[in-house]
Amino acid sequence: MSHDRAAVKAVLEGARAAGRASLTSTESKQICDAYGIPVPREGLATSSAEAATLAADIGYPVVLKIVSKDILHKTEAGGVLTGLGTADEVARGYEAIVKSARAYKADADIAGVQVQQMLPAAQEVIVGAVTDPSFGKLVAFGLGGVLVEVLKDVTFRLAPASRDDALSMIDGIQAAEVLKGVRGADPVNRDALASLIENVSALTADFPEIHELDLNPVLATKDAVAAVDVRILLAQELPEPRPRPSQEEILKSMVRIMRPKSVAVIGASGEDGKIGNSVMKNLINGGYQGEIYPINPKADDILGRKCYKSVKDVDGPIDIAVFAIPAKFVAGALAEIGEKGIAGAVMIPSGFAEVGETELQQQMIGVARKHNVRVMGPNIYGFYYTHENLCATFCTPYDVKGQAALSSQSGGVGMAIIGFSRSAKMGVSAIVGLGNKSDIDEDDLLTFFEQDNNTQVIAMHVEDLKDGRAFAEVAQRVSKQKPVVVLKAGRTALGARAAASHTGALAGNDKVYDDVLRQSGVIRARTLNDMLQFARGLPILPTPKGENIIIITGAGGSGVLLSDACIDNDLRLMRMPDDLDAAFRKFIPPFGAAGNPVDITGGEPPTTYRNTIKLGLEDERVHALILGYWHTIITPPMVFAKLASEVVEEGRAKGINKPIVASLVGDVEVEEASEYLYDRGIPSYPYTTQLPVNVLGAKYRWARGAGLL
Amino acid sequence: MSHDRAAVKAVLEGARAAGRASLTSTESKQICDAYGIPVPREGLATSSAEAATLAADIGYPVVLKIVSKDILHKTEAGGVLTGLGTADEVARGYEAIVKSARAYKADADIAGVQVQQMLPAAQEVIVGAVTDPSFGKLVAFGLGGVLVEVLKDVTFRLAPASRDDALSMIDGIQAAEVLKGVRGADPVNRDALASLIENVSALTADFPEIHELDLNPVLATKDAVAAVDVRILLAQELPEPRPRPSQEEILKSMVRIMRPKSVAVIGASGEDGKIGNSVMKNLINGGYQGEIYPINPKADDILGRKCYKSVKDVDGPIDIAVFAIPAKFVAGALAEIGEKGIAGAVMIPSGFAEVGETELQQQMIGVARKHNVRVMGPNIYGFYYTHENLCATFCTPYDVKGQAALSSQSGGVGMAIIGFSRSAKMGVSAIVGLGNKSDIDEDDLLTFFEQDNNTQVIAMHVEDLKDGRAFAEVAQRVSKQKPVVVLKAGRTALGARAAASHTGALAGNDKVYDDVLRQSGVIRARTLNDMLQFARGLPILPTPKGENIIIITGAGGSGVLLSDACIDNDLRLMRMPDDLDAAFRKFIPPFGAAGNPVDITGGEPPTTYRNTIKLGLEDERVHALILGYWHTIITPPMVFAKLASEVVEEGRAKGINKPIVASLVGDVEVEEASEYLYDRGIPSYPYTTQLPVNVLGAKYRWARGAGLL
Repeated sequence: MSHDRAAVKAVLEGARAAGRASLTSTESKQICDAYGIPVPREGLATSSAEAATLAADIGYPVVLKIVSKDILHKTEAGGVLTGLGTADEVARGYEAIVKSARAYKADADIAGVQVQQMLPAAQEVIVGAVTDPSFGKLVAFGLGGVLVEVLKDVTFRLAPASRDDALSMIDGIQAAEVLKGVRGADPVNRDALASLIENVSALTADFPEIHELDLNPVLATKDAVAAVDVRILLAQELPEPRPRPSQEEILKSMVRIMRPKSVAVIGASGEDGKIGNSVMKNLINGGYQGEIYPINPKADDILGRKCYKSVKDVDGPIDIAVFAIPAKFVAGALAEIGEKGIAGAVMIPSGFAEVGETELQQQMIGVARKHNVRVMGPNIYGFYYTHENLCATFCTPYDVKGQAALSSQSGGVGMAIIGFSRSAKMGVSAIVGLGNKSDIDEDDLLTFFEQDNNTQVIAMHVEDLKDGRAFAEVAQRVSKQKPVVVLKAGRTALGARAAASHTGALAGNDKVYDDVLRQSGVIRARTLNDMLQFARGLPILPTPKGENIIIITGAGGSGVLLSDACIDNDLRLMRMPDDLDAAFRKFIPPFGAAGNPVDITGGEPPTTYRNTIKLGLEDERVHALILGYWHTIITPPMVFAKLASEVVEEGRAKGINKPIVASLVGDVEVEEASEYLYDRGIPSYPYTTQLPVNVLGAKYRWARGAGLL
Repeated sequence: MSHDRAAVKAVLEGARAAGRASLTSTESKQICDAYGIPVPREGLATSSAEAATLAADIGYPVVLKIVSKDILHKTEAGGVLTGLGTADEVARGYEAIVKSARAYKADADIAGVQVQQMLPAAQEVIVGAVTDPSFGKLVAFGLGGVLVEVLKDVTFRLAPASRDDALSMIDGIQAAEVLKGVRGADPVNRDALASLIENVSALTADFPEIHELDLNPVLATKDAVAAVDVRILLAQELPEPRPRPSQEEILKSMVRIMRPKSVAVIGASGEDGKIGNSVMKNLINGGYQGEIYPINPKADDILGRKCYKSVKDVDGPIDIAVFAIPAKFVAGALAEIGEKGIAGAVMIPSGFAEVGETELQQQMIGVARKHNVRVMGPNIYGFYYTHENLCATFCTPYDVKGQAALSSQSGGVGMAIIGFSRSAKMGVSAIVGLGNKSDIDEDDLLTFFEQDNNTQVIAMHVEDLKDGRAFAEVAQRVSKQKPVVVLKAGRTALGARAAASHTGALAGNDKVYDDVLRQSGVIRARTLNDMLQFARGLPILPTPKGENIIIITGAGGSGVLLSDACIDNDLRLMRMPDDLDAAFRKFIPPFGAAGNPVDITGGEPPTTYRNTIKLGLEDERVHALILGYWHTIITPPMVFAKLASEVVEEGRAKGINKPIVASLVGDVEVEEASEYLYDRGIPSYPYTTQLPVNVLGAKYRWARGAGLL
């Protein structure tokens, strides 16, 4: 579809020159024509003969409408006629309308009569575009009519939207089935509708000054689509874009920051209880092997290390400076950091924007930008990078190495990450506090973790995205390689948002986040605990090679609950092939349940678990297993844990690597058994049938989003 | 509204006599008239003059339709005219229709022309009734049209439905707002619509032979409602009702069963590893103080107790007999149990319906019914009643006394209950296995727990309700006194259900359970873990006296997540009164957040937590508190736990008893602090912001359902 940018530019400039913030219907139509957005065919006639000629061009039936700036209520003035089917009817209609209008208002200035294509009965949909403060241009799609307004059944994508995005919108609303034709109705033309969505999204992406756009309704039939009403609102002023270094620049700085060869501590202290003391101790006791330079003009020696008055006094290069001085001294010290060529400032101090000191923060960032210093924070606990034994934080050290990188905007959530990690013995690569996000934010971290071989999953607690557009672009790329999990806090709709258009009013904050995160391949965690569990479980689970899942359970009751959890997680229970069913039946009692779940029944010895798990593991048609263990005397928890681990280990030796999760129900011994299994690559959980399936479901969501399934 | 039962009876008998399973439209209309279900006014005319007279009676405008069994497609035959507004038009219309019909089919047997009131444009809704295999008669309500069919936005209530039920249905669909009038439309007449729902529900409750009923559409305007199409299907045969003893009889037996003074063990054994041995040991070692009679014809003495050949050899009375013998011997032993006048048989053995031995189970139940013995099971682990130190089970003993009674249909889930209880040190009054539910089921347990002072919450794992109607009736009563929590397993819609009507097709199994459980005041737990956590937390939380909830948090990030969880749980954050806001501000730093959540900020000492919690506790306008603790050096976890417990204890001494829950984020010390708080009546959880609010939300759902709020 070719887009006539020059035509649109001319219309927009004309409107701006006239000082208007909204376009006339003629201007709107011109813009639609320029971008291949179908509108009803129409024209202005100034005589009955001209009306008849126009109608013949447009095709019958047509609608006639009086055009007069003096007549606001056209219908009341007898100024509308519909369903005119012949040249004669149109000509007579023209005369009748003008006569009625004159009768209604004798001195009306009549510009003529609009002749418009009359569209057949059709499904009404809404297509629109909005400008989101974080994500920028978004295209929206929903069904028209009262119910949609009430049920808010609408979906969003970043603009420009691809063909696939557009199709996923048509399929992605709750009432999608309506568009496929129900109760004998024709389906709408998906191709035409997708093209219209694409073109709207391209238009709004190409012209940032289009603030909101409403096509409401768009009529969709099996043949075609047409936007009947078009409303376009212009932006008063364009927002200042957040500075965005190139990906190369970001990576260059972030590698130095996250894996520094040397660290300076600004405000290092020998005094217990001081933040500058805690940071020093954590660096030293954490086992960091790079250079540590305490900086403090009042000391010669701190914790046995030579202390410097300024970073400029240090001979060798320094990669990061951890700040532990009051906010008011930060800007001054930061200039020296910049002059020294330090890549990053880890800004622990609070007292900036979070307490209303926005100017102080702006000033700090000004200094940092001038010197090309990237700033993490302020108002953070610092960060951990375990594979360098780096605890650049005033909190307690943490050193269990693993593949999960976590970040939090809030310090409280950061502490929950640390506590949970320690409690669950979760291996992490990094834990990062982002705080006020004056500079470094989630997309900078993603850019680093993307190429960090120690990181296989990235989990982020997010309250707001300072630059959602940048995040989405990077996440879209990174999530193809590694799962990105986001806990988006703050789900209340942004009620107070000023919205002049219908689409704008529908753009509740959370729905936008939900759609854009999915479009970016991000797995959204609904709760803090889910985020933590996903971070723990995802790097352990191998990537599934297909959608066929089998539940093998000793407890029929667990089987039912595990099946429920599969439905919740959009996981598909394999339709059991006859031969595989027969093979399972050989191992289970005659009264065990057929099909899937495979119910081996409660009283079975270890061999039954072993045989059935082995069968599920080795059959190539099966892609993932969910185990439901039931504590019995004949197969105690640790016996089960050991046999299951052995079977899986034997499979691995043969190159079989399928995701397996387990739910263990029983007395307290199942806790130890769950840990044992978890340590051997089988995420397992006591007293819950939901959590193992949630974790498997997250892996599947990722694999689907990354195009691996 | 008076209901003419005789008229309905006559119509139904007529149809049955004619061997029809569905009613004609005339019969359906007669039934509607008899039960005050408005339908369009209409009549049959056999001449043009009669048509005009009828139309004048009915009121203009009217619709005319040919009535002929030989003309199926009325419109095609020119047999329908709409919008006739005068006597003359009606008379001419009559002639025209008959003429057209004759032209269409010369030999058609024409009964006349139907003259029908023509209704104004209106909102279409659906009202119907179905017969559910478990719940019996249900009334259904939804919006009409394609979207509802697609979105399945429909709601159910047990029939007969009360006025309040009917109104709650109108308000309870997702698209309820549509009925209130949107985009300038009039609201529908709620009273008229509620009356129609009530009358439909009464009709179906009064006449069990009405299997399904569809009013689709019902037209609803601001003035009135009318069912345009009525479809009534009759049952082929009525199902055999499950035997239901009276509540008094149930209670008499259940008290003897749950708190027995003496227990016989049928198949008691001295041999380790036998079920009859485990049961004996659990009874003795569990500390049961009543009489224990081992029964085994082959032994004289078991575990130091005199053994009897038969219960009939025992001198004193016996309340329950725990069975530990193979299935095939059960019926014989059961007869002796009955003759001895024992109230209940705890039927641990498997080998009955769960393995297809339905007849054996029927036979067993036949013996039990004959002797008025109630049977728990078969195929169960038995049960615990801790306040009598009774472990009538072959599982491990459990003795932590508390106020939660739990039951499970599945043995696996029962083991999860025992393991979780032990791990969380959850006090319980009872844990009961229901297994095959051949006799005793959830409503029997509810009847007992209702009057059991040791029980303050009842939590049940349910796969199916053998008699959902009985359950709902008892639950409706019991839940007014004590929270009833149900984990309903098996959420897949009952896809295969044969449904002849529209309403029937909409009656997916899970939606029916969801609605009826809510109607019965039951709190539905979505996951096994939620059920367990609700059982643990609900009896500890005092009942809230109002809807005003305040979040007090040290971590702003937790505050946001706790607010999200409030939205999920339909909890209302109090709109903070100015004076209370000012009072809070006195205690918190100037940059702490105003309003609710009260964000005391992270660096605060214990006094700030103490002062703000005390303020929230003592202000009468506040009804519940959610605490968000953030681990800091200045207020470590146990310091927080102790101060919070003290403040709450001081409040209790002054008679202040509000529900308080807490989320603790921080390093692993928060686990100990959470336990400390939990033990002191503040349900508290580490690393999660969702769970504390879920538990508080469950308490609120209960209090609202019980009419306490």
